[in-house]
Parts: sequence; C-alpha cells; structure tokens
Amino acid sequence: LTQALTAFETALSASALAVDGELGLLFPKRGGDRLRDAMRYAVLGQGKRLRPFLVLQSARLFDVSAQGAMRVAAALECVHCYSLVHDDLPAMDNDDLRRGKPTVHRKFDEATAILCGDGLLTSAFEIIATANFPAETQMQLVLNLALSSGAAGMVGGQMLDIEAETKNFSNVDDIAAMQAKKTGALFRFACEAGAIMAKKDATALRQYADYIGLAFQVADDILDVEADAATLGKATQKDQSRGKATFVDFYGLQGAKSKAIDLHDQAIAALSVFDHKADLLRDAAQFIIMRKK
Amino acid sequence: LTQALTAFETALSASALAVDGELGLLFPKRGGDRLRDAMRYAVLGQGKRLRPFLVLQSARLFDVSAQGAMRVAAALECVHCYSLVHDDLPAMDNDDLRRGKPTVHRKFDEATAILCGDGLLTSAFEIIATANFPAETQMQLVLNLALSSGAAGMVGGQMLDIEAETKNFSNVDDIAAMQAKKTGALFRFACEAGAIMAKKDATALRQYADYIGLAFQVADDILDVEADAATLGKATQKDQSRGKATFVDFYGLQGAKSKAIDLHDQAIAALSVFDHKADLLRDAAQFIIMRKK
Repeated sequence: LTQALTAFETALSASALAVDGELGLLFPKRGGDRLRDAMRYAVLGQGKRLRPFLVLQSARLFDVSAQGAMRVAAALECVHCYSLVHDDLPAMDNDDLRRGKPTVHRKFDEATAILCGDGLLTSAFEIIATANFPAETQMQLVLNLALSSGAAGMVGGQMLDIEAETKNFSNVDDIAAMQAKKTGALFRFACEAGAIMAKKDATALRQYADYIGLAFQVADDILDVEADAATLGKATQKDQSRGKATFVDFYGLQGAKSKAIDLHDQAIAALSVFDHKADLLRDAAQFIIMRKK
Repeated sequence: LTQALTAFETALSASALAVDGELGLLFPKRGGDRLRDAMRYAVLGQGKRLRPFLVLQSARLFDVSAQGAMRVAAALECVHCYSLVHDDLPAMDNDDLRRGKPTVHRKFDEATAILCGDGLLTSAFEIIATANFPAETQMQLVLNLALSSGAAGMVGGQMLDIEAETKNFSNVDDIAAMQAKKTGALFRFACEAGAIMAKKDATALRQYADYIGLAFQVADDILDVEADAATLGKATQKDQSRGKATFVDFYGLQGAKSKAIDLHDQAIAALSVFDHKADLLRDAAQFIIMRKK
C-alpha cells in the first residue's frame, strides 16, 4: 500500500508540475497589471492539483489528447482557485493563510480579491471555449462545469456551509448533502470530463467521483482534528471553533476513519469496468483518505 | 426628437417586461433557498434592461429567433446584475441602495452577496449552453461573453476604476480606456450578439456599441453632477466625493454634453449600413445621452 502511494505521489507531483506550467502560460507575468498579478498569484499556489489530476487521468482512460485535457484541467483549477479566493474573504472564512502563503485579500486587498475571483471564474469558460475540441464537446464541458460550479453545485454548497454556522445540521445526511455540492460537484466534473471529451458514458466515473468526493471531505474533517497548522499550512480546527458540525462529530474519530475506508472501497468498486489504465485513479482514492494535508 | 424618444421608451419598457419575464422563469421563487432567493432578488430589480434590449434589437436586424435571442439577453443581464452586486459590496463601492432598493448585501448579508454574484456569473454561461443554437454559435457566444466580462473586459475595467481612487487618471484617454472595459465591453457584446447568432459580420455593430458605450458613461458622469439621489435611486456625486476624475472634470459640463452628442452622431453613422430595422438602435443612442436616470 505504502509503495503504491509513493509511486502515486510521484505521479501526482509530476502532473502538478505540468498543470502549473499550463497555468503559468495561461496567466503570464504582467508587470503592473494588478488584477492579472492577483489572478496569477491565486492560481500559482503550491496546490496538489488533485482536480486537474483527475481530469487528466479520466481523459487517459479514453485516450483523449493530453493537450486538450490539460486545458480542461486548467479551467477546472481556475474555478477551484477562484472559490478559495472568495471563501477566504473576511465576509466568508476570513483566512489569512492559504497553502502557507498570504491569502489574496491579505497580499493585495479585499476589492482586488473579489475581482480576482470573478476574473478567474470567467477565465475558466474562456479556456474551455478556446480548447481544441469539437464545439459540441466544448458546450457539454461548459454546461457541466457551470452546473458543477454554480448554485446547483459548489456555490450552493458554500451557501449551505455558511448557513450551518447558525442553523446546525441535525443529521449526517445534511452534511453529506452540503459536501456533495461544496466539494463533490467539482470532483464529479473532474472525473466525468474525460468521458465527455471522449463522448463516452460517464456513469462509472461519476460514481467514483461521488465516493472520493465524500471521502475527501471526511478525511478533511479528520485532518482538521488531527493535523497541526504547520503541516496543513492553514488554520485548523476552525469548523470546531465555529460550532459547525463535522463528520467527526457524528461518526466519532474512529467511525469517521472507517467511513473513509468504506468510501474508498466503494470508489474502487465503481472503477471495476476499467482495466489497469485506471490504476492511478485507484491510487488517488487511497491517497485521498491517507493524505496528511 | 422627443416624440421618437417617447416611442422608444415604450418599446424599451415592453422589452424590459419581456426580459423580466424570462429572468423570472430562469430564477423562479424557491422558498427557503437563501442563495436562489438572493439571485432572484438581484436579477429582478427595476432596471431598464438596456443591454438585453440591445441584444434583442441586434438579433432582429438579422431575423434571429426571438426566443434564442432572449436567452442570450438574459445571460448578459445576469453578468450585468452580478457585477452590480459585487460592485456594491463594502470592499468596493459600499452602496446601500440600487435601483431604489437595498443592495443584496444589505438585504441579505455580505457572504450571500458574494456567492450570489458568483452564482449569477456562472448562470450566464449555463443559460447560453442551454440556448437553442448550433454548438458553434453557442461557443462563440460563450467566448465573446467571457472576453467581455473578464479581466480583458468588465472586471479589468472595474479594477482600473478602483485603482483610479489612489492614482488619478492623468488624461481623458485613460478614463475612456477604463470605461471601454468597465461598461463598454458589455455594450459591445450586447450589440455583436445579434451578428454572432446570425453568423454575420459584426463590425458595424461593434463600432456602434463602442460609441454608445462611451456615450453612456459620459452621460452617467453628467447625470452624476446634475441629478439628485431621489431621481437616480442611488447615491450621486460619489465619484466626485472620492476625488475620482470623471469626463466632466476633463471636458467641463458643457464640453461633456457636446462630447455625448458627438458620440451619438458617430453611433448613428456606424448604423448607416442598416435600413429602418435599425431605427430602435438609432433611438437607443439618443436615449442613452438624454435619459434622466
């Protein structure tokens, strides 16, 4: 297990470097352009680039052109990064650090951070609209990315998460439903993207995505309890300090760990229709529940 | 002139009602869904719906289906409304009133307003992706809307406008360049949309758009000096109170009025390739410089 994970982390790092390269080209240095500087700062963090990795791996299953898949991966990362910039704002999570660096509104200012997020979200659709795919495929990608990112997906989940600060979740299904939108929706898009680019059935990949998306969040709640700020590079135990219920509250720490393993197993089962080409996706499921940050 | 303008205002009102109807269907009432409630509140103001009107009129020039054009008009209005929600935020213009009603962050709260704007921007692309046009046309619309709305357009212009509070514009071309992005870019998309939907040349419409976009802003600066808050339904003279240079500062009040008329005339000249079908667009140019709010 550990050996597979080491190989996986090497593959993930290599993929992250390639994604960073693409993002660096899409958001080149522009001396003196405050907005572009902020956008570049926001996308060129030190992220694991897990969502882009899932896009690239789901595309590989169907032999989609790596160049085309990379554009979609970059577009999705723009959406992810914009959501972090806005979530970090004083009116939202009010975080000073992100991936060990000052958040955009700390590095620049609040107005710039708002516009930076708006610009990145808009860029995501521009990047898909200029990717080298047939127009039908581009449209399907635009539509699914919009559905995953907007009120029916990520933004809707973020709203539910904020509301949970005042009206607490009464059961674990409510948290799961919130997380399915807040983090699950982008994982789903990442995994279905390969099938969309190849015009193939995305059912198995969507199931896989839903399991790892939930596993990711359960693991996050466990990390939030166990990790310290130095390892994570951001504030920890913040959900707890705000009185927001987490999976750990409902399952207990050991129960949450069992739940994460169950979800991992279900994710692997969903991939049974694929051969060895899906091995890195299998490893990803394991990585998601075993990562230390 | 006045008679034409009255007829125009009747047409504009009728169009606004139809646009409101479309937006009402796209953002139906959802009791208890805070995010959707905020989005509905933000799009269903009492706006003139000038940008959607321009989309619908530019589409009529080429006999584009009114149903399809209405979707694009609604998508554009979502972008316009999201930009107002974010611009009104405390970290930006910090406005309490918009079209005579409490701004979204006053009616709801700041976090909801941020997410509301994010949701509306995302919706715009979803709406185009589900409009009844060939995929190639949808893609061109997505691309041009993204370019007009993002860092190269509206968001970039908003950033320049904010920066102007600290480093003042040294000449009128700087203001014009800022405005071409901040307000001009969406006017441009509105006017070129008809040609894109019909796969026709958009050159003349883009020229027209650039003139009326600038005219709109010159007129805004004049209104900002002359109108009172009651008529305008929002805070006035705010640019002045912040020491931001306006067209009136550079041209003087009479000079700005002459400039607006020049721009009107140039806009009309750009429409010379079109017959009577463009008459409402001609009236629109006049309306833009003569409106009282």
